[in-house]
Amino acid sequence: MAQLKGACVIAQSGGPTAVINASFYGAAKAALASECITNVYGAAHGIKGVLGDVLYDIGQEDEQELEYLKYTPSSDLGSCRYKMADPDQDSTDYQRILEIFKKYDVRYFFYNGGNDSMDTCDKISRFMAKSGYECRVMGIPKTIDNDLFGTDHCPGFASAAKYIATSCMEVSRDARVYDTGSVTVIEIMGRHAGWLAASAALASYCGDGPDLIYLPEVDFDMDEFLAAVEKLYKEKGSAFVAVSEGIHYADGRFVSEAVTSSTDGFGHAQLGGLAVKLADVVKQKLGCKVRGIELSLLQRCASHCASLTDINEAALAGQAAVEAAVSGESGYMVAFECSRENGYECRTKLIPLTSVANFEKKIPLEWIGEDRCSVKQEFIDYLLPLIQGEPPRALENSMPRFAKLKKLRAQ
Amino acid sequence: MAQLKGACVIAQSGGPTAVINASFYGAAKAALASECITNVYGAAHGIKGVLGDVLYDIGQEDEQELEYLKYTPSSDLGSCRYKMADPDQDSTDYQRILEIFKKYDVRYFFYNGGNDSMDTCDKISRFMAKSGYECRVMGIPKTIDNDLFGTDHCPGFASAAKYIATSCMEVSRDARVYDTGSVTVIEIMGRHAGWLAASAALASYCGDGPDLIYLPEVDFDMDEFLAAVEKLYKEKGSAFVAVSEGIHYADGRFVSEAVTSSTDGFGHAQLGGLAVKLADVVKQKLGCKVRGIELSLLQRCASHCASLTDINEAALAGQAAVEAAVSGESGYMVAFECSRENGYECRTKLIPLTSVANFEKKIPLEWIGEDRCSVKQEFIDYLLPLIQGEPPRALENSMPRFAKLKKLRAQ
Repeated sequence: MAQLKGACVIAQSGGPTAVINASFYGAAKAALASECITNVYGAAHGIKGVLGDVLYDIGQEDEQELEYLKYTPSSDLGSCRYKMADPDQDSTDYQRILEIFKKYDVRYFFYNGGNDSMDTCDKISRFMAKSGYECRVMGIPKTIDNDLFGTDHCPGFASAAKYIATSCMEVSRDARVYDTGSVTVIEIMGRHAGWLAASAALASYCGDGPDLIYLPEVDFDMDEFLAAVEKLYKEKGSAFVAVSEGIHYADGRFVSEAVTSSTDGFGHAQLGGLAVKLADVVKQKLGCKVRGIELSLLQRCASHCASLTDINEAALAGQAAVEAAVSGESGYMVAFECSRENGYECRTKLIPLTSVANFEKKIPLEWIGEDRCSVKQEFIDYLLPLIQGEPPRALENSMPRFAKLKKLRAQ
Repeated sequence: MAQLKGACVIAQSGGPTAVINASFYGAAKAALASECITNVYGAAHGIKGVLGDVLYDIGQEDEQELEYLKYTPSSDLGSCRYKMADPDQDSTDYQRILEIFKKYDVRYFFYNGGNDSMDTCDKISRFMAKSGYECRVMGIPKTIDNDLFGTDHCPGFASAAKYIATSCMEVSRDARVYDTGSVTVIEIMGRHAGWLAASAALASYCGDGPDLIYLPEVDFDMDEFLAAVEKLYKEKGSAFVAVSEGIHYADGRFVSEAVTSSTDGFGHAQLGGLAVKLADVVKQKLGCKVRGIELSLLQRCASHCASLTDINEAALAGQAAVEAAVSGESGYMVAFECSRENGYECRTKLIPLTSVANFEKKIPLEWIGEDRCSVKQEFIDYLLPLIQGEPPRALENSMPRFAKLKKLRAQ
């Protein structure tokens, strides 16, 4: 495969995570080290930065600040939720991207995101191929939802899971401190896949956690839920329940639907408020003290409780994407292939973007308890290796020291 | 002062904190080491454990498990919110306490709690003196609200403040990740004193934090609030606002009042839901994307983000209470006297329970900005030394390892 010399663009898209900047770091470091890549640019706010010609010259950043990226939450380049049209219907955006790529001699494009971003990435890849402009396009996986097809797990998931499980252990102790009885409902992100809500089971596995866990993989039944809570409350004097924001009735309606009507850029209903709603229902039924807790943004940006394994794998994914592209690959997403037999091992592989785009990987039903409100040991065995290790994050005055990039515009 | 031999009872009361068990640890270790104290008992659920004759024999616990208490959140003995009658009106409870104290030859009583608990402690102290039964009663301070009179600060406050500031730094990065504009409101505990909400300013001091902070020390004006948010939103495209749950209008009504009507054991309105309510008001006014986040229980039980200084001082407070009682003192609460001139120094002192009970210490108005939605450097200088140090907490599989006491009933 002939060497391809030119600049590269790295962009971050979709909801941020605690480790997406580690992927940015991994890709940037590999790109800066590559002889084929002449310039390393970061696009502001995902693909919108390319369309708007707002590219930052990463080559001018201080090495130490790039190191800080590994422990800095959220998408440091900025993110977007921008739906690209089908190029066969409307190629305006794609023509503009081509124009910008030509302007900066961009021959490598790395898009770091989830399902929707891989779809965008796939469309750009196919358009470039069709247009005859040689540009190697690679997807770098990212999502706390852990719902990307074709990979053992997704960078970002484990750190969110670790924060959720740790917080559930702490809340479980706090919520049961009085002898007067109470029911606590904690709401966890995950629209269609319950990977994050299921992570609360790790807290119970460690000795302090939720009694019941409700996932979107199975239909929710309010009467069953109330009966289970009432049983616990009468037996133990307290109940601690973890619910996925995406739990739905058999007819598909989200339990939280009534709470909000606004939608994000992709037309997904924006969920939330479910914990308080369920707590109120319990209060009406049992007349007991209740509390609804929503982990909200905290669960996806808590870098202070991140998994070092997750950080290292996120950096590895970015690095692997660059190395594969430089070696001639294009149109793939980096994925993880893991073995847990003799200790945990994680290797990267490549899967076609087309096969990833817009699929959602859910928890295998056989990992969910017959009671439909618990998970089995198989899930714990899957999750445990992913959350290992405490990051050596930089602190100043015992507070986080986040990366501060100069973000000088590309010339 | 003659030596007083007998058993001691340690009890935990009021809302739990991330470090109240460190005070329990400090008191228990000192009591177990004392030649005067024959038995060390822990009361289940505060004073209710004494009334109900449910005492645990701490002398039978494993040393290592007691060590784990320093990094274990919530009140491991259980807590209560139990209002004692005025002994002159109704001495039933006090007679019962005397009976139990006589049964176990209890000569030392240590009550670890906040304002209401110090009131309980004071009443018990005065009743014992009046009844002629020699029992030394000491209060150990505890409250994330930091509103106890006569002490530089309260054990529990700094760890909550550190978690709040750290989380605000992370959320600030996440909430500003899109270029589409948004307003985020984060709700922080603190009914009448704004110490915790003000701690969010430490995040801004560190480079990423709220733009506006609203405290209960000053009256809240909805129009001023909306104008300030609109100005920021138009200038920067985003606004991040921290509010104390206790903010109120000039006429005294809590802004969150409409949201809930239930009350706790002391007749305080149970607040919450304020962040979502304010976010909705902003959305109606500006029509922008909004998000309301409530830190809820997380902020008072997040031992994974505790301050080592706070943990050590909490243990010191427990130890000092025992040592003072053994040396003959009674009717006092342990307090902190700190100097910040040449480095930070913290010493314990004793203040009469009567002077503490039911007072609430608020943020000095001169530490609050003229704009009434910020705090001055004086507050940062006050807070910074208190949050220093990361606890060497025990981990198993990268998850917290909390104390597991046997809790064998006293004979």
